[in-house]
Amino acid sequence: MEKKPYVIGLDLGGTNSVFGIVDGKANVVASVSVKTKGHGTAEQYVNDCCDALKTIITQVGGIDKIQAMGIGAPNGNYYTGSVENAPNLEWPGIVPLAKMFSEKLGIPVALTNDANAAAIGEMTYGVAKGMKNFIMITLGTGLGSGIVVNGQLVYGCDGFAGELGHVVVERGPYARECGCGRKGCLEAYCSATGMARTAREWMAIRNTPSTLRSIPSDQLESKDISIAASQGDKFAQEIMEYSGDLLGKTCADFVNFSSPEAIIFFGGPTKAGDLLMNPVRKAFEENVLFNFKGKCKLLLSELDGASAAVLGASALGWEL
Amino acid sequence: MEKKPYVIGLDLGGTNSVFGIVDGKANVVASVSVKTKGHGTAEQYVNDCCDALKTIITQVGGIDKIQAMGIGAPNGNYYTGSVENAPNLEWPGIVPLAKMFSEKLGIPVALTNDANAAAIGEMTYGVAKGMKNFIMITLGTGLGSGIVVNGQLVYGCDGFAGELGHVVVERGPYARECGCGRKGCLEAYCSATGMARTAREWMAIRNTPSTLRSIPSDQLESKDISIAASQGDKFAQEIMEYSGDLLGKTCADFVNFSSPEAIIFFGGPTKAGDLLMNPVRKAFEENVLFNFKGKCKLLLSELDGASAAVLGASALGWEL
Repeated sequence: MEKKPYVIGLDLGGTNSVFGIVDGKANVVASVSVKTKGHGTAEQYVNDCCDALKTIITQVGGIDKIQAMGIGAPNGNYYTGSVENAPNLEWPGIVPLAKMFSEKLGIPVALTNDANAAAIGEMTYGVAKGMKNFIMITLGTGLGSGIVVNGQLVYGCDGFAGELGHVVVERGPYARECGCGRKGCLEAYCSATGMARTAREWMAIRNTPSTLRSIPSDQLESKDISIAASQGDKFAQEIMEYSGDLLGKTCADFVNFSSPEAIIFFGGPTKAGDLLMNPVRKAFEENVLFNFKGKCKLLLSELDGASAAVLGASALGWEL
Repeated sequence: MEKKPYVIGLDLGGTNSVFGIVDGKANVVASVSVKTKGHGTAEQYVNDCCDALKTIITQVGGIDKIQAMGIGAPNGNYYTGSVENAPNLEWPGIVPLAKMFSEKLGIPVALTNDANAAAIGEMTYGVAKGMKNFIMITLGTGLGSGIVVNGQLVYGCDGFAGELGHVVVERGPYARECGCGRKGCLEAYCSATGMARTAREWMAIRNTPSTLRSIPSDQLESKDISIAASQGDKFAQEIMEYSGDLLGKTCADFVNFSSPEAIIFFGGPTKAGDLLMNPVRKAFEENVLFNFKGKCKLLLSELDGASAAVLGASALGWEL
């Protein structure tokens, strides 16, 4: 059966739920945003979203023009189509969101976690087009990952594979607490929030002057660090080097698993460009096993940050 | 086309090359062993092996009864069918061993590395029967691994994926040198030889008495440690606990990658049973991410040690 011309992508974030209607050439032809919180139940959330969707569905000629819908959501499980025990969402337990949207809209709906959606987005529209083996790393509040092996997303036995942010990189007595309840996870160091933690920790430990000291501690973001670094702040540059070095070393370890042809980075901190990526590349090449030297490219996503998550989610729809 | 009743498996080790003719029920119906070294060229090695094979092929009714051959070899590359720069073999560079055997015998031949062969063996004949996602860990001179995702061996972009022995577990100034030229690899601590290194290192550092001290340092093996531990030697027990703890912690990290339903251990040190596996299990459960708790079984291979490698290699033949 011929594919219909559009898919819907939903980037379900803790704050906003962004819907986009996407064509086969990665154009977001219409979009609408709904607050994720404040609907009470998940049922009401789905109802409110579908109401908001009506207008943009009509814009493209009605639901008959839409092949399917893909959702990228925190703690999303591809196998079950559910969001499971997501700490940053209002709905407790297991919410069968794919089924709920599918029944309401009358089209097939698939759901996966946000980093997996980003990986599918890169494979469908981005720098991973044509690649069969790659790893996607998303740097944000957390550090997410989507792993592709033999052209397929790795979901594992339970739908939750690809939690590279929770590989332990520091086991010493000063290892940082991670949101997962454990200590020393990569996410606690190399996500956007992890880099801000490094800044706060080092400002407490060291006397080095830095423009970062004038920013209220609880407002300091990774963006401030990369801006300060690009303006020549040595302290900030050292944070970028430390974060990049640790990320590069750890990525060198990841290669031992799936020997990918590329690791693709996405998210706020990558906007620092070479300030972050030069130390990542240096540490990676110095630490990677000789077998793999020169084989794995370290790339930045080329998808537009604002629409990449929606594109990624929508790409899941094309598989249905 | 109907499958023929037998496959040939070759376990190509640094010292011996063991051939077995295997039926569909994992019975090694005939076998022959050839020294791996001393043939001069790889061509002569293949000729000598095929001469030795003639007798056992005749025993099962001739080459027409044989579906294919599978080879498990160090540094074996499934994609190319070659052994590539194997430090423990006599042949330099890239040796297209699968092609050479295939031309000589007139049957299809596939080749992969020894740990991958073990994983395929477990999936075909062993405790991984019916599993779609698992990790095989082989403990010997090195620490090898074979990773299965969605029912397929993970070979990666170059055929060399699954080098979990070279994940770095120690980055401090005392990190051990590994055979790969890097420092702190899991293999340098938790392989059979790694455990013996721990014994030697600790005997130098500590004054604790131990029966292990009466063994010449260069003859000490992991087997001696597990025997001493089972006889109540506290020092040896501590080595088993340390090795198991480190292996368990690291396996907890591996789960973040592929969320396997089992990790399967094979090789000499596993004969220590609970002495090794209790600390592995304890550290694993304490360190695994909450998402994965209680989902991944830690199992021992049930294939007979002597024939497991041949069975694993032969299983590759059934895929042809």
